[in-house]
Amino acid sequence: MTSETEEKALRYRRAQSVSKAEEITEQEKRVRKLQLDKPIHTPRDSLFSWSSEFNNFTGLVNWGFLMLSVGGVRLGLENFLKYGLRVNPFEWFIVLTGYNEGTSSQYPSFILIVFSIVPIVISLLIEKGIAVDFLPEKFGVGLQIFNMFFLVSLPVVVLNFKGNDFSFVGITSVCMLYLIIFLKLWSYTQTNFWCRSGLKKKYLDNKLRRQSLSAPNWNKLITAEHDQSKEDLINDSPAAAKLTKYPDNLNLKDLFYFMLAPTLCYELNYPRTDRIRKRFVIKRLLELIFGVNLVLALFQQWMIPTIINSVDTFAKMDPIRITERLLKLAVPNHLLWLCFFYLTFHSFLNLMAELLQFADRKFYGDWWNANNISTFWNSWNMPVHMWAVRHVYKPITGLGYTKFFAGIVVFAISALFHEYLVSVPLQMFRIWAFLGMMAQPPLAIISRHAEVRLGPRWGNIMVWSSLILGQPLAIMMYFHDYAMLHFKPVQ
Amino acid sequence: MTSETEEKALRYRRAQSVSKAEEITEQEKRVRKLQLDKPIHTPRDSLFSWSSEFNNFTGLVNWGFLMLSVGGVRLGLENFLKYGLRVNPFEWFIVLTGYNEGTSSQYPSFILIVFSIVPIVISLLIEKGIAVDFLPEKFGVGLQIFNMFFLVSLPVVVLNFKGNDFSFVGITSVCMLYLIIFLKLWSYTQTNFWCRSGLKKKYLDNKLRRQSLSAPNWNKLITAEHDQSKEDLINDSPAAAKLTKYPDNLNLKDLFYFMLAPTLCYELNYPRTDRIRKRFVIKRLLELIFGVNLVLALFQQWMIPTIINSVDTFAKMDPIRITERLLKLAVPNHLLWLCFFYLTFHSFLNLMAELLQFADRKFYGDWWNANNISTFWNSWNMPVHMWAVRHVYKPITGLGYTKFFAGIVVFAISALFHEYLVSVPLQMFRIWAFLGMMAQPPLAIISRHAEVRLGPRWGNIMVWSSLILGQPLAIMMYFHDYAMLHFKPVQ
Repeated sequence: MTSETEEKALRYRRAQSVSKAEEITEQEKRVRKLQLDKPIHTPRDSLFSWSSEFNNFTGLVNWGFLMLSVGGVRLGLENFLKYGLRVNPFEWFIVLTGYNEGTSSQYPSFILIVFSIVPIVISLLIEKGIAVDFLPEKFGVGLQIFNMFFLVSLPVVVLNFKGNDFSFVGITSVCMLYLIIFLKLWSYTQTNFWCRSGLKKKYLDNKLRRQSLSAPNWNKLITAEHDQSKEDLINDSPAAAKLTKYPDNLNLKDLFYFMLAPTLCYELNYPRTDRIRKRFVIKRLLELIFGVNLVLALFQQWMIPTIINSVDTFAKMDPIRITERLLKLAVPNHLLWLCFFYLTFHSFLNLMAELLQFADRKFYGDWWNANNISTFWNSWNMPVHMWAVRHVYKPITGLGYTKFFAGIVVFAISALFHEYLVSVPLQMFRIWAFLGMMAQPPLAIISRHAEVRLGPRWGNIMVWSSLILGQPLAIMMYFHDYAMLHFKPVQ
Repeated sequence: MTSETEEKALRYRRAQSVSKAEEITEQEKRVRKLQLDKPIHTPRDSLFSWSSEFNNFTGLVNWGFLMLSVGGVRLGLENFLKYGLRVNPFEWFIVLTGYNEGTSSQYPSFILIVFSIVPIVISLLIEKGIAVDFLPEKFGVGLQIFNMFFLVSLPVVVLNFKGNDFSFVGITSVCMLYLIIFLKLWSYTQTNFWCRSGLKKKYLDNKLRRQSLSAPNWNKLITAEHDQSKEDLINDSPAAAKLTKYPDNLNLKDLFYFMLAPTLCYELNYPRTDRIRKRFVIKRLLELIFGVNLVLALFQQWMIPTIINSVDTFAKMDPIRITERLLKLAVPNHLLWLCFFYLTFHSFLNLMAELLQFADRKFYGDWWNANNISTFWNSWNMPVHMWAVRHVYKPITGLGYTKFFAGIVVFAISALFHEYLVSVPLQMFRIWAFLGMMAQPPLAIISRHAEVRLGPRWGNIMVWSSLILGQPLAIMMYFHDYAMLHFKPVQ
């Protein structure tokens, strides 16, 4: 008998609060063991009893993994038996290009994508105009804002007049691209503005210093000299000499590098890698090719039949059936979202970064461990998060507003953009996406409470639940409205 | 910037094997950070890149748990929508008692259960006969063996003549009970045999010692005295005085305590608790009442429709459809097995132990963490495991055979008993259960290899796979043969 077993037996007897007089002594135990009937029983607890204090259930992790796999394989087989093979890569080619739709041979989405170069170049020209004092600064910034809003309005206007020429996927891509360019131009304009303000301030400071030196004041002089050495470091050191300075950055090459770079935040000097790793590029490229095909195949084979099967259910508004449909949709939707996340934020952005020798690869944090919803939103999409912190949150708190207010503004802007990405392609102005995003700050507060009160595990479970169930709920809302509009149910 | 981020950035640059001359110095970094464009980018890796050395994916455990729950709730809803509510507790009453079957009002299973007292009492009488020298020992042991085989043959013979009078559940219960009594009587006979042999040896030793003392031999004398003090401790100490000794144990009360006790191993002095904890009893009782109803409900609602739906599939022998059915059956079957495990090995055996003040509660080990199949078999069913070690494995190795041979004998006996429990109630002598059990030693060797070569996690996954998939495979085999025999498919 090991000492561990003995210790457990001892604990067991303690748990039963046996009085000392009645307790079986070690000698008594030994005597019993030496009897002729070869005894093997010892007083000890079952592992599931609280008094056993046993808590090693690591094997259950593998159990969960296996049950998920068994369920997954069976679902796949059932789907195949029910619907046959629905995967058809050629169909995607038609959907993506708008070819074969019979209405237009002009590929309107493609034209809009190419046209996006125009507002980009206009933005550069305006900045150049301000820098060479051709345009007054305030007027120039006004022009920039006008240019940006012209950019995001363009798809809405074009769609209004030539809506039938667009495929759904085509117009979604256009909206996404225009939104990204909008965010990038915002950052470009604001960063150049910071540079100009900084230079002006430095000029004024220098002037002030020279004035104060003419009337000697030793304290000020020392501070000024200290500042001067720091200034020298920033402006005239060998390290500084390598850096691009405003307005030398205002050229096409620099702007197009920013447009292609996997970031929404404009900087004059990005951290760069010193070579392109070919193996890395090939790996990301293979991931993209294989992954995109997997996503498209899952979508055709799994998502579309499930959505189509739910039209009737939604028309009938039977709550049990709707819940069943929602849960049925939740699984493929969530898996597709996970694939999409990996392909976009790991494969695609890393590929672009490697090709452009862009060294900052933090495109996502470890959101899968997030213990509350704000942590999730701060880490799942780092380019947008960094943009929001640098260009919305910090400027607002810098003006003296509270952090809470700045956070709400960030969520409101984000909610508007989500609505833009959904409503414009669907040509159906509902507010489900906006409401979904605006539900996040209250949810964040609730999940923060869950984390503090029930422990981090429950916070994390809340984050995952909102991801797994929230998305298909929103999709169902839009699909319900879309189906009600386009295919009237048979009464 | 935290030191952790800096460290990561450093590691990143090392991973890219940047030469020292080109490396960006701390000063250069500082100078860049102080520029007017408020830079935020730093060289760092994506978390999924190997070079990031990130490996915290604890959140994915919660993800798995949630996906399982979502899948489970959806399956439940789908089942409810497809089959309606099938749970009917009254139906179970009919199945269990055989009432309402129209063939017999004699409850034949019940009569056989009551009759099991006869061989138990006979066994006691034979032991008593040997103890008082009424029966020669060898003849008495022969009678015991005959009595035990008469016991296990009884259900087979009775079923052969009055097969139609039994319900399937009734005859399964009878077989299970008779098998347990068989194992207990085996242990009873063998333990009493050990006691007799031990007493005889002691008697001979004492005689020998007295002879050796008459011819003085100091060394022997010291050893003998030492032995004598140990002997005194075992036989005459106050601790020993409390213990029951052979043949005082041969009485009805002692035998019936053993028959009811949650163990298959007979001992003259079991470790006992000093009181019955009422809260504990009530908890186990509630678990049993609630759990048994849950199991029966799941069986009616989930298992039976799935099995019935597979008759046609099995008749057609389409491998894809059979795999789909097998996986569909695997999930409820496995969950029912888990419930059955908990109810039997935790709730029921602990309840019996508490009521009988039986202190050894190790009815199961932590088989869920087992990293190979032999560990699983050694820990999931401790009463049978302890019986097999004490009454089969050790006696065989004690005779000088190898451990491997003893292990094979244990599995062969276990395989026979499994076959008995399945074939007799089904009245269909196939060898699937026997083969299933005999496949375990080779599987144990394979899983041991997997554990050593691929790591303990893969060993554990193999154990779970064989549990989740092996059982429904065996059920399907029997069901296929049973269906082929009883409902001929329409050609």
